[in-house]
Amino acid sequence: MPNDVLKCIKSRRSIRAYRPDQITEQELQAVLEAGLYAPSAMNQQSWHFTVIQNRALLQQMSEETKAHLLNSGFPRYRRLLTNPEYSVFHHAPTAVIISGVEDAIDPRADCAAAAQNMLLAAESLHLASCWVNMPIYLFRAENGPEWGKRLGIPSCYKPLYGVVLGYKTDKPAKTHPRKENTINYIR
Amino acid sequence: MPNDVLKCIKSRRSIRAYRPDQITEQELQAVLEAGLYAPSAMNQQSWHFTVIQNRALLQQMSEETKAHLLNSGFPRYRRLLTNPEYSVFHHAPTAVIISGVEDAIDPRADCAAAAQNMLLAAESLHLASCWVNMPIYLFRAENGPEWGKRLGIPSCYKPLYGVVLGYKTDKPAKTHPRKENTINYIR
Repeated sequence: MPNDVLKCIKSRRSIRAYRPDQITEQELQAVLEAGLYAPSAMNQQSWHFTVIQNRALLQQMSEETKAHLLNSGFPRYRRLLTNPEYSVFHHAPTAVIISGVEDAIDPRADCAAAAQNMLLAAESLHLASCWVNMPIYLFRAENGPEWGKRLGIPSCYKPLYGVVLGYKTDKPAKTHPRKENTINYIR
Repeated sequence: MPNDVLKCIKSRRSIRAYRPDQITEQELQAVLEAGLYAPSAMNQQSWHFTVIQNRALLQQMSEETKAHLLNSGFPRYRRLLTNPEYSVFHHAPTAVIISGVEDAIDPRADCAAAAQNMLLAAESLHLASCWVNMPIYLFRAENGPEWGKRLGIPSCYKPLYGVVLGYKTDKPAKTHPRKENTINYIR
């Protein structure tokens, strides 16, 4: 019964440590194509992907996001956000911002399916990946709309999720046990 | 470069015609397990799955959903909803209602990732599957909360998405071309 797809789904983990070297263009394109092949409500394909591979820009975005979150009062994350070593992109060399058409039927579902496809495609290529939400707060800051413009996100799209990509380090990823009693049956 | 995971992501289609015979328990469990292994914000695993394999119940749910949608004014779907042959479950023998914890960080994203994992697991097992949204409107009807109770959905969970499963017929599934200009790059 177990096949490569089921194995990939089980082996995928959120990776928060990355090698500094960039992924290949071929790997990037395979991951992006997987995102494009997600299902979407009424086939609206309500997503837009912004690929950021400029290290200085990622660093700047991370610093601004952290400052914005600290100012907005995220007491739970204060220690993380005040750590100069912490990056909201986990220092991955590639980040993809997934944005959804605001007035589509269900952009949050469409874009989440695209994100999950990207994570699985990455895992299938032995890449490290992580679904990241913190960078999205940058677009909710006062100058958030300017960031959207600067990154070339068309104005009818709203940034919803982030995915970071890179190569794995030797640091093993934690496996979380699954919660119990989350399924019921009616037969 | 293409591996079984990338191929599965590209070959998956929304299937709206099903053979009447039920999938095996082993197939069902593989699909459900794939759903449980989705990522979730802060590992909250904010989902609950309700598996419905009772044909009479699915028929009743479909009829009530159609009646509710007609009464709520869905002019675009009037022809479909008044067609007695139409089922909001596409006559699939298995339906999974995916519900999310209302006050989790991002239940819509967590549950969408779980849904996408299930669809890919189904495709990897050569099952037919479809992400369905119409059945969720049943829970928004006046007696929606009663339906939630009847189906054993814990009260802190809200039904968000549906996935139907079964065996494929000979009817080929339509392939939609992907939209262009949905990716930009900053390097």
